[in-house]
Amino acid sequence: MKVEGPRGYFRRRLYTFRFRSSIHVATKPSIPKGTRDFGPQEMLRRKWIFSTIEKVFQKYGFLPLETPAMENLETLTGKYGEEGDRLIFKILNSGDAWKEVDPNVKEMIRRDEAVPPGRLASELSEKALRYDLTVPFARYVVQHQHELTFPFKRYQIQPVWRADRPQKGRYREFYQCDADVIGSTSLLNEVELLEVIDEVFTELSLRTLVKVNSRKILMGLAEAIGQPERFQDIALVLDKMDKVGYEGLLSEARARGLDDKGISKILELSDSLAGHTTKRWNETLVKLKEFMGNSAIGSRGLEELNTVSQRMREFNSEFGMTGSIQLDLTLARGLDYYTGVIIEVKAAEGSLQSSICGGGRYDNLTGVFGLEGMSGVGISFGADRIYDVLLELDRFPKDLVTSTKLLFVNFGEKEAMHCLKLLRTVRDAGISAELYPDTGAKMKKQMSYADAKGIPFVALIGENEMKQGIVAVKDMKTGEQKAVKEDELVSMLMVES
Amino acid sequence: MKVEGPRGYFRRRLYTFRFRSSIHVATKPSIPKGTRDFGPQEMLRRKWIFSTIEKVFQKYGFLPLETPAMENLETLTGKYGEEGDRLIFKILNSGDAWKEVDPNVKEMIRRDEAVPPGRLASELSEKALRYDLTVPFARYVVQHQHELTFPFKRYQIQPVWRADRPQKGRYREFYQCDADVIGSTSLLNEVELLEVIDEVFTELSLRTLVKVNSRKILMGLAEAIGQPERFQDIALVLDKMDKVGYEGLLSEARARGLDDKGISKILELSDSLAGHTTKRWNETLVKLKEFMGNSAIGSRGLEELNTVSQRMREFNSEFGMTGSIQLDLTLARGLDYYTGVIIEVKAAEGSLQSSICGGGRYDNLTGVFGLEGMSGVGISFGADRIYDVLLELDRFPKDLVTSTKLLFVNFGEKEAMHCLKLLRTVRDAGISAELYPDTGAKMKKQMSYADAKGIPFVALIGENEMKQGIVAVKDMKTGEQKAVKEDELVSMLMVES
Repeated sequence: MKVEGPRGYFRRRLYTFRFRSSIHVATKPSIPKGTRDFGPQEMLRRKWIFSTIEKVFQKYGFLPLETPAMENLETLTGKYGEEGDRLIFKILNSGDAWKEVDPNVKEMIRRDEAVPPGRLASELSEKALRYDLTVPFARYVVQHQHELTFPFKRYQIQPVWRADRPQKGRYREFYQCDADVIGSTSLLNEVELLEVIDEVFTELSLRTLVKVNSRKILMGLAEAIGQPERFQDIALVLDKMDKVGYEGLLSEARARGLDDKGISKILELSDSLAGHTTKRWNETLVKLKEFMGNSAIGSRGLEELNTVSQRMREFNSEFGMTGSIQLDLTLARGLDYYTGVIIEVKAAEGSLQSSICGGGRYDNLTGVFGLEGMSGVGISFGADRIYDVLLELDRFPKDLVTSTKLLFVNFGEKEAMHCLKLLRTVRDAGISAELYPDTGAKMKKQMSYADAKGIPFVALIGENEMKQGIVAVKDMKTGEQKAVKEDELVSMLMVES
Repeated sequence: MKVEGPRGYFRRRLYTFRFRSSIHVATKPSIPKGTRDFGPQEMLRRKWIFSTIEKVFQKYGFLPLETPAMENLETLTGKYGEEGDRLIFKILNSGDAWKEVDPNVKEMIRRDEAVPPGRLASELSEKALRYDLTVPFARYVVQHQHELTFPFKRYQIQPVWRADRPQKGRYREFYQCDADVIGSTSLLNEVELLEVIDEVFTELSLRTLVKVNSRKILMGLAEAIGQPERFQDIALVLDKMDKVGYEGLLSEARARGLDDKGISKILELSDSLAGHTTKRWNETLVKLKEFMGNSAIGSRGLEELNTVSQRMREFNSEFGMTGSIQLDLTLARGLDYYTGVIIEVKAAEGSLQSSICGGGRYDNLTGVFGLEGMSGVGISFGADRIYDVLLELDRFPKDLVTSTKLLFVNFGEKEAMHCLKLLRTVRDAGISAELYPDTGAKMKKQMSYADAKGIPFVALIGENEMKQGIVAVKDMKTGEQKAVKEDELVSMLMVES
């Protein structure tokens, strides 16, 4: 049989493995859909994103926090809406989970009766993977309220898990990078978080579009069209503008029994605001105010946004915010706990349409855990989507390369022993270096190792070099080779950085 | 009713919350047993441990890797022994997990027949949380074998999860910090990893006891007492020395039908080795060789350890390894995949008896995934236990404090606006700073905020200071206060670092 090309080669290898390893089936291993491995290059880039965000968080006085991957199921359920509850990854109770199931449920199964959806799952599981960082943060604040000083500013950079259908920009395991201030009602916090957003994306060299709105304005709009009790529905429908467009949104509104003429007016107003930057906010706010008439909550929402935008403008003129900020009346943010200013950031470049950062003010997040009256505001960066955008735009710094600076070629037992001491000296100087471990490996193999790892310098020490106390150092970029005295190796490497 | 003290106070507060929040039950929230929250101070200390380890890994040319928290269940099962399989946290299939259960199993349940242990769990779950970093690493290497250059040196710092009974030094979620070289049989890798261990613990200022052994020597000992086929049992029994002591171990050996006289001789030999450092290794190796007689694999194990120790000694004399290394014949390491040199590290100070680092050579870890002939060697640091030891010994650097250097006190609307600009200037200089967000908060409250956060400098800017263009800066440690010109604030803070 003629087997050619890499695929044939691979099939042949698999066959060989099966042959040699009789007990194991050599199926190629894989990982769960929606999850990813991050190899060395991806890691260096991800670390760069994380450390950029973290440095800004720290500069603004946020302190680090980490919570466990697993929370009690009851901590998470009921916090993300019905849809959210379905997307929580539940952990099977350890031991014999079946044994602990409620006898009534067992009986239902035995009789072949329908078990209510989710009932069996809740019997088999009492822990779950965190779905976001906000609810665990609220749980932490309540649990540790007597040890904390308020306002409490914390940041948290950890993965979260959602049993969502994987697609572009949507993963089942992804990192959130959150910063929250809790225990302060001051709008200076909103201003500060908008600055954090601006600074992070400036550092990442990514142009963004920052949209803001207020849940209070949404409430005011619901009052303006005479359906304040339908606030949730109105918010939900408006939020679909990006997905279904003007006509789709209106027919959805009609289907839900909402005042479509009112909704249409909101969309008109929203449209006339589109593309306006902070500079024209004042005019647009006047129009909005007219529309909302005497809605007290609507006015409050407008005032708040006005205060925030004024303070932003002050910075804008003097320090130059680089992203543009836009008021978008159709912005609602799905999660129920927001009560004030809401924020959403999208990339202004590249093909990804989803949001890469979002947040807002919540007046009573800790209430569900028994601590009332704690207002907070926070933002969350989606590091994985930011990674995707930066990758598409080729915006990662070019110098994010392997950490190894020097590879000692291994010419044999004696030479390797000699190199070990030099290696120690180089490492003691804080320089990352390696000795190729396998004595007798072909020169070509050792050089391709250096090449593949992007190691800039290779040290060649044969018998002659050992005798003379020198090192032949090859510059892998230029191909040039020069002799360096052993005791000058470190300083040579220091200069070449 | 008289309610006194903090507990009474707390109960009263809970009552108040219940009263004010009618829909929520104000039970104090908690986290799953064996898991932990890490607040700001713990985080700073943990980050210090992680970055210390990571820097050493990088200096030795290891490259970063991260794998998903969830692996396919089949990737993990059967790799950690029966006990290990039981301790894997399984994730309930999302959607209606019950619907997908094998009709045969459902039928068994309906008929009230006994379902084989674990059978239902495996029907309800196809994903699990990683149990260690080694098996996911092996899976990664096989999956990406055609993209990697061998020898592949990777490090990985991520949490793992085990459904173990929580106790001192044992958590259900904990971090492992692994470094592995795969695709190289050279003993230089073992030497290098021992150096990594030494360097990490030197950097962490922790004295350790490093024990080494070889699975080949254990095999040789099994041959020496005429029970080579009982190798696994012998290793298992010897490994219990630390827990059950001499007599306990012998009776366990008898119970398992092992040659207790042979075991006793091994223990005698092991005892005579105890406390010996690398300097006397040569003598002890001679004794061991005699005992093992003509066991080929035993001799090979001895030679390997001898080579490693010789190279370590060369370093020892010239560069000073700080930890002592000891050959311990009772060291076996539970996991089945080790085939050569094995390593275990305990703290030589403090009360924790468990190992804080371990590792060894495995000849065929990737074999189970279809890639044969890939020898590797690796080590794993237990960051959580290291944390516990350092905390007990009070060894954390004293300067691991909050990142905020300057707090601007908020005297009112106008003053705050003035401060915002100075704040921007300070932050633009890369200095971490904050403005207390709430206008009108009492001075005392603002000062205790600075105190609690360990902020070293507080800026006081009232009307007078604004007029004069100065900042009153209070040094929180000395209590001293001095006036600084606005444009000299940054340089003053730079000097005071």
